[in-house]
Amino acid sequence: MTETAHHMSADMQQCIQECLTCHSVCLSTVQHCLQMGGQHAEARHITTLLDCAEICQTSANFMLRGSELHTRTCGVCAEVCTRCAEECERMGSHTQMQACAERCRRCADSCRRMSAMAA
Amino acid sequence: MTETAHHMSADMQQCIQECLTCHSVCLSTVQHCLQMGGQHAEARHITTLLDCAEICQTSANFMLRGSELHTRTCGVCAEVCTRCAEECERMGSHTQMQACAERCRRCADSCRRMSAMAA
Amino acid sequence: MTETAHHMSADMQQCIQECLTCHSVCLSTVQHCLQMGGQHAEARHITTLLDCAEICQTSANFMLRGSELHTRTCGVCAEVCTRCAEECERMGSHTQMQACAERCRRCADSCRRMSAMAA
Amino acid sequence: MTETAHHMSADMQQCIQECLTCHSVCLSTVQHCLQMGGQHAEARHITTLLDCAEICQTSANFMLRGSELHTRTCGVCAEVCTRCAEECERMGSHTQMQACAERCRRCADSCRRMSAMAA
Repeated sequence: MTETAHHMSADMQQCIQECLTCHSVCLSTVQHCLQMGGQHAEARHITTLLDCAEICQTSANFMLRGSELHTRTCGVCAEVCTRCAEECERMGSHTQMQACAERCRRCADSCRRMSAMAA
Repeated sequence: MTETAHHMSADMQQCIQECLTCHSVCLSTVQHCLQMGGQHAEARHITTLLDCAEICQTSANFMLRGSELHTRTCGVCAEVCTRCAEECERMGSHTQMQACAERCRRCADSCRRMSAMAA
Repeated sequence: MTETAHHMSADMQQCIQECLTCHSVCLSTVQHCLQMGGQHAEARHITTLLDCAEICQTSANFMLRGSELHTRTCGVCAEVCTRCAEECERMGSHTQMQACAERCRRCADSCRRMSAMAA
Repeated sequence: MTETAHHMSADMQQCIQECLTCHSVCLSTVQHCLQMGGQHAEARHITTLLDCAEICQTSANFMLRGSELHTRTCGVCAEVCTRCAEECERMGSHTQMQACAERCRRCADSCRRMSAMAA
């Protein structure tokens, strides 16, 4: 993303990237879970994955627009990602679930750092 | 929105409606401001309007999905709407700006109430 | 939506409203279907509902921005809404499915008219 | 994006990536243009950049959900990206405009290929 580099800190660039990757992985995981069925396809879990995908997108967009209030969307994003990671981890040792949980954890960490810069 | 009525409180239904209306008015106001130029078209103001439109949409979608975490997105939405209202009011007595500010204030109030139910 | 009225045709205002309503109903229906399970929760059906909700939102946003290319997004929206209506109708006489199908049909009709104005 | 690799063609994975990158660059370019002012900040140009960012996101999401109808959103995306590239090129030799135009061209090419697979 060299075109956006000159007016952004390295931390923010990394956070945008984490959000976009987490968004993509969560949306893919929705499909995966619906096809697996059972607990994977429960309303609560699908909803959390959709929540996580959407707030990651919104959070990335706030940073891409250079919005001051990105610290607030990053704060919520960190919370939603953490919940999504916990739910995926609870689903057991399935590869896709572990991969999704890991991306959510990384995104949560990065968003928490951005959010803390507000204080 | 009768189709969504049966599993939602009247407060939540109203909040969804306020978010969707605020989203629409903010997006329309972006066009209006770009055509007026001057202070109306300043990067900061356009960015706030786009931020407000997007978080309203995200916040409405969290409620439509029945997400527990809607209290968190509503909290951020109330903050962004309040800032957007303040900026629009500062632009003077132009009709579109006043109308936009009023919808932002109403949405902020409604989202603040939803957010407070979390406690 | 009086604040957006002055620079838009009545047809376009109605189409925006149909898109926003269809978006809301499709997102609510996702929750409904996931809770019902069985054929309602099949990956293909949930995906179509999510597709429909998203293209309705995008299509509404193009019109709210006053974009010339709204005729193109409306064209795709009409197609996706029609497919979503067909799938919901195939699910049988459940109230929520019938209500969703009807909103999709109305949105498809409205978008098809907007799309045809391009020619 | 290794987590999404196993159920997608290499072409589709590349197209998702082009869409996400084009979305990010267009949103950053909006800020850039608003700050430059003049022709860069004209309503028509900002609207096209916002259109392009949004349809790229929608198009990526259809592919991430594994939707059959992604060929249709990719078709519209190719059109919007092409228009956005043309407008950016018309703005002269500014680095950010050239970079944005190039990402739009690449995304348009990739989406056109995905779209053509429908036939």
